[in-house]
Amino acid sequence: MSYINDDFLLHSPSARSLYHGYAKDEPIFDYHCHLPPEDVAGNRRFSNLFEIWLEGDHYKWRAMRANGVDEALITGDADPYDKFLAWCRTVPHTLRNPLYHWSHLELKRYFDIDALISEETAPEIWEAGNERLKSDALSAHGILESFQVKVVGTTDDPTDSLDHHQAIKELGIGTKVVPTFRPDKGLLVDRPDAFNAWVDALSEVSEVAIDSFTSFLDALKSRHEFFHEMGGRLSDHGLERCFYAETNESAVASIFDQTRSGNAATSDEKEQFGFYLMREVGRWNAEKGWTLQLHVGALRNNNSRMFEAIGPDTGFDSITDVSQVGVMGRFFDALDRTGQLPKTVVYNLNWSDNYSVATMLGNFQGGGTLGEMQLGSGWWHLDQKEAMRAQMNALSNLGLFSRFVGMLTDSRSFLSYPRHEYFRRVLCDLVGEDMERGELPNDMELVGGMVKNICFQNAVEYFGIDLG
Amino acid sequence: MSYINDDFLLHSPSARSLYHGYAKDEPIFDYHCHLPPEDVAGNRRFSNLFEIWLEGDHYKWRAMRANGVDEALITGDADPYDKFLAWCRTVPHTLRNPLYHWSHLELKRYFDIDALISEETAPEIWEAGNERLKSDALSAHGILESFQVKVVGTTDDPTDSLDHHQAIKELGIGTKVVPTFRPDKGLLVDRPDAFNAWVDALSEVSEVAIDSFTSFLDALKSRHEFFHEMGGRLSDHGLERCFYAETNESAVASIFDQTRSGNAATSDEKEQFGFYLMREVGRWNAEKGWTLQLHVGALRNNNSRMFEAIGPDTGFDSITDVSQVGVMGRFFDALDRTGQLPKTVVYNLNWSDNYSVATMLGNFQGGGTLGEMQLGSGWWHLDQKEAMRAQMNALSNLGLFSRFVGMLTDSRSFLSYPRHEYFRRVLCDLVGEDMERGELPNDMELVGGMVKNICFQNAVEYFGIDLG
Amino acid sequence: MSYINDDFLLHSPSARSLYHGYAKDEPIFDYHCHLPPEDVAGNRRFSNLFEIWLEGDHYKWRAMRANGVDEALITGDADPYDKFLAWCRTVPHTLRNPLYHWSHLELKRYFDIDALISEETAPEIWEAGNERLKSDALSAHGILESFQVKVVGTTDDPTDSLDHHQAIKELGIGTKVVPTFRPDKGLLVDRPDAFNAWVDALSEVSEVAIDSFTSFLDALKSRHEFFHEMGGRLSDHGLERCFYAETNESAVASIFDQTRSGNAATSDEKEQFGFYLMREVGRWNAEKGWTLQLHVGALRNNNSRMFEAIGPDTGFDSITDVSQVGVMGRFFDALDRTGQLPKTVVYNLNWSDNYSVATMLGNFQGGGTLGEMQLGSGWWHLDQKEAMRAQMNALSNLGLFSRFVGMLTDSRSFLSYPRHEYFRRVLCDLVGEDMERGELPNDMELVGGMVKNICFQNAVEYFGIDLG
Repeated sequence: MSYINDDFLLHSPSARSLYHGYAKDEPIFDYHCHLPPEDVAGNRRFSNLFEIWLEGDHYKWRAMRANGVDEALITGDADPYDKFLAWCRTVPHTLRNPLYHWSHLELKRYFDIDALISEETAPEIWEAGNERLKSDALSAHGILESFQVKVVGTTDDPTDSLDHHQAIKELGIGTKVVPTFRPDKGLLVDRPDAFNAWVDALSEVSEVAIDSFTSFLDALKSRHEFFHEMGGRLSDHGLERCFYAETNESAVASIFDQTRSGNAATSDEKEQFGFYLMREVGRWNAEKGWTLQLHVGALRNNNSRMFEAIGPDTGFDSITDVSQVGVMGRFFDALDRTGQLPKTVVYNLNWSDNYSVATMLGNFQGGGTLGEMQLGSGWWHLDQKEAMRAQMNALSNLGLFSRFVGMLTDSRSFLSYPRHEYFRRVLCDLVGEDMERGELPNDMELVGGMVKNICFQNAVEYFGIDLG
Repeated sequence: MSYINDDFLLHSPSARSLYHGYAKDEPIFDYHCHLPPEDVAGNRRFSNLFEIWLEGDHYKWRAMRANGVDEALITGDADPYDKFLAWCRTVPHTLRNPLYHWSHLELKRYFDIDALISEETAPEIWEAGNERLKSDALSAHGILESFQVKVVGTTDDPTDSLDHHQAIKELGIGTKVVPTFRPDKGLLVDRPDAFNAWVDALSEVSEVAIDSFTSFLDALKSRHEFFHEMGGRLSDHGLERCFYAETNESAVASIFDQTRSGNAATSDEKEQFGFYLMREVGRWNAEKGWTLQLHVGALRNNNSRMFEAIGPDTGFDSITDVSQVGVMGRFFDALDRTGQLPKTVVYNLNWSDNYSVATMLGNFQGGGTLGEMQLGSGWWHLDQKEAMRAQMNALSNLGLFSRFVGMLTDSRSFLSYPRHEYFRRVLCDLVGEDMERGELPNDMELVGGMVKNICFQNAVEYFGIDLG
Repeated sequence: MSYINDDFLLHSPSARSLYHGYAKDEPIFDYHCHLPPEDVAGNRRFSNLFEIWLEGDHYKWRAMRANGVDEALITGDADPYDKFLAWCRTVPHTLRNPLYHWSHLELKRYFDIDALISEETAPEIWEAGNERLKSDALSAHGILESFQVKVVGTTDDPTDSLDHHQAIKELGIGTKVVPTFRPDKGLLVDRPDAFNAWVDALSEVSEVAIDSFTSFLDALKSRHEFFHEMGGRLSDHGLERCFYAETNESAVASIFDQTRSGNAATSDEKEQFGFYLMREVGRWNAEKGWTLQLHVGALRNNNSRMFEAIGPDTGFDSITDVSQVGVMGRFFDALDRTGQLPKTVVYNLNWSDNYSVATMLGNFQGGGTLGEMQLGSGWWHLDQKEAMRAQMNALSNLGLFSRFVGMLTDSRSFLSYPRHEYFRRVLCDLVGEDMERGELPNDMELVGGMVKNICFQNAVEYFGIDLG
């Protein structure tokens, strides 16, 4: 029996019944990822396994560095095959790491290859994989179709023209691709150069002359409206933790002016500005029925030498341990007091915070919305079986698991769709175990229905994106 | 086989032997709860399922809010049956939440109803349940008797007259009901209105004219003595975290005076006052052989809009992530230095702190007292299988599980006694699994004896409450 | 079947195959412990069970205190047999605590005693054990030989002459005993008395006149070089958390001067001094190919009354919950920027930090070194099955488990070698379970090879100690 087989990760009869009967065939609603819209617009094709599999995957890069691989073979200018080979040499040393699972699952589902990856099997994998890449099934569109991807939520800067999204609309493919509003650069008042360049770009794209905090907000809101017209229904925010401060518009306007003059904000000023701006975006989201996504708990760019050499998002980010929930609660409360708290998904990166975050979300449920506040699925370093189970258990014990909007890839790669399969197997295994043990009723209709909803239908109902 | 059956949660032969042979028949020592003493004094009867089951249960309210139920059907003025129905509609969506277990266990044990709760079964449950409520077995006294509740520790303000406790004493029922001294309002020096009203009430009930910090302490201590006369042997304190500060009596006396004059204490002053007062209470406890209970780690009243609408204890409280053990250690040390550290039970609400708290408690064991410092059972959001197991494992790995004083309901409801059963099943399942795997000796007498003690006898010996 | 049997802790066929086929017979590389070098030099013999088993074991002392044993029978001057008896009475109350496992494993492996420890079995154990202690097999050398201990890394103050290490070298025994450089006292600028006494001793042993920060560093570095000559390849540092501050040499030199004049450093000054000195030591380590060991997360000497009575390392230390990774990352980055980051093992004591620490380490892998940054094995309070599994899972999910350098005793006792056996059983059980469930490939050669490496070979390759 091959390593990746029909019952991979499904350790009980109930788990297998749930997966094969209720989960496997559901379509995919990938509401948050980092796929490049131009790759969909242009129906990108990949010339070899390195390009589709390794280029840009900083999870794999981290593993290779820990395995003593030279940086030239990771992000350097070595030959693609040599880089591929360096990865294949590393794989047998990733036993028990999710990469071992992901990699074999990816090879199996896209290339129908059963071999265990190693230096020995590298040549045959390279050859067979590259051959297969020539087929239409492995073009961008082919992949979206074969995995039944109904929705893709990309991640986009407000200064983006969304031209690629326009182009995709006109293609008429079976996947709805919607932009997500991610204004993180608007928070950089402690880095005037970056902030001002971004504000200038915002001014240009919005055609709003930005000469004050008020016109800054006008410009940003006009982009929010434009994203809405283009089908966007979510914003996304990457924060080490939420902002909260007592402040007011005139204080924040001063901080804006001062940054525009080239003076960096202090950390206290950044807190005020961050809180005020995030509250504004939250209110816009509430007004339009959007969902606010908060990715909290990452400590980024820790290796300054490598940051200078190869920039951000290259595998030098980790999990913070700062206090999260005090400020998070106050941020939500500031929105809730005026009835302007939008639907919210919090992805927390430190699983030691699962329980505190889950219970904080529970304080703001209500107003007749189903599962308004969501504990997001295991994210980044937590996107693996142990941490997925922990997230599912936290949500189950402290909230309503049955209302969970489920999995998202959060990935830059077209090869990541099997993560939905992985998630579903973990889900069915966990829930099936409960059934076997009599901790859930032995009612396949009831429990299977919940599983099915988590796989697809809950997201459809929650996000309000028109699938038509 | 019905969902709630004899072997519910007992997944191995050893688990079943332990539960049925050593745990099931032990009486209940419910040393900390929030039952209203007047309900015991008056032998309260309940007119319908809403009244006994939903009224005041903010765990269920949170679930209903997450399920999109309108607040009118939760805490509003809707018809009791409609509220009941809204709950029954919610239950199938609580799969994997402890409420699913609790609710079915409650229906089974009190009403002998086996149906899975849902909108469909709601009418028959309402009818059968209400019929059953007419029997004496479901009066307050009937319940205490049928669950073999030997001790009930209520939670009482020092300003309470304890008249209901006096009345209960005179009833001669088989349950010993003792008051617990909870002086939390005496810490509110940052809220002069609340503080002063409370100090005035304290003055009145104690018949001590309070015109200084000294007379304040005198008055409070006289209530501590009165609680002792009335059978009280525990105090209880709800703190986000312990207080600790370098301070002295004259500084604290000034803070007291200033608060009495209507000026709110700063957070630094509150820290001083809190430390000083808690140390005093700790000393009184030590002097009288009482147990100090610390409930730490809750972040309360996070939703200010709902707080203003319906007040505290309505389901808007969550788990904090502030640092706990530094100040906790210093607080204990301040008491220990003078040999005045009382027996102490710490219930921590953030399970990420289980290990740090458990080891801090281990630093203050000794003086010839068995299990003097106790890691309390999983509390509130942690009162469920996953977190109960975590608490039991933390205590086992870092202390002496065999000396554990076990379960308490911490509940406002007479329907919560099956939580002891739930705890015992989780306990026996966990310990039984160890036996099956050879990690504990296959010696039923040895292991069963430990289980039995945790269910009842350890609490008898630890708290020193006369059961007579 | 006796409690400690061949398959203890091995719960599946794969686990048993892994343990018996790949783990059991590997030698021991105990790269970090606290064995007294003089005991090896003098081939210490032990006159009774108390001396070899209880004297100095503060894990057992904590358990006895929690069991209400009088301090006279723990660290006091009671008769050795009475102390032994007090321990035997306590053991049955340690069910589920690792001490129950350790103690029976120790009795079995050193004394071939199968009895369950209790008051009843105490006399026979005392007699048989003491008899056995007379044999050469239970001398210091006999123990090292029978457990196949190839390397012992002791823990030594830079002011130590290492005369015992010299003596051991000349013995020609089969165990390589190397010193470890532990300059913790050089950080005590907040305690001028302790600091200055230590600096004076350092001056004497190094024969460097210390009259400035520069000469202080010279003296310390000369000891680092001497340790290197004596075979040392590791330093070790016990810190509540890492130090980090913006500072420079002249600021730090002033702090040094001021401390030498008897003025205690402020906490801010201590932070600067600590950072600067630790960075220096890190650089020396990098230069010489040494490994830096950081033991972070302990909160020590919490019970001031007992500290005054019986001093440090007596069982009053616990787990801190302060923030760890921000400063840790900056410390590593400061070393990495200049290419002077040494191989590093971080042992963190708060398992809630496992994930954040593991991912921070991942940010600094690289430079072509295999597993340069290591998440150390479960330490102290975490040296038990639950926490060992958590460490293994964290390392597996977030790094390369296959490159793990494995177990160390960290112990003061010659009776602790079965901890390696315990670790290996836990390791094989965990990995075997993955094989059984198809989560690892069913390839015994591949998986068994990884296990074997973790037991011994990885440490050989990582630490670069000549086994000669």
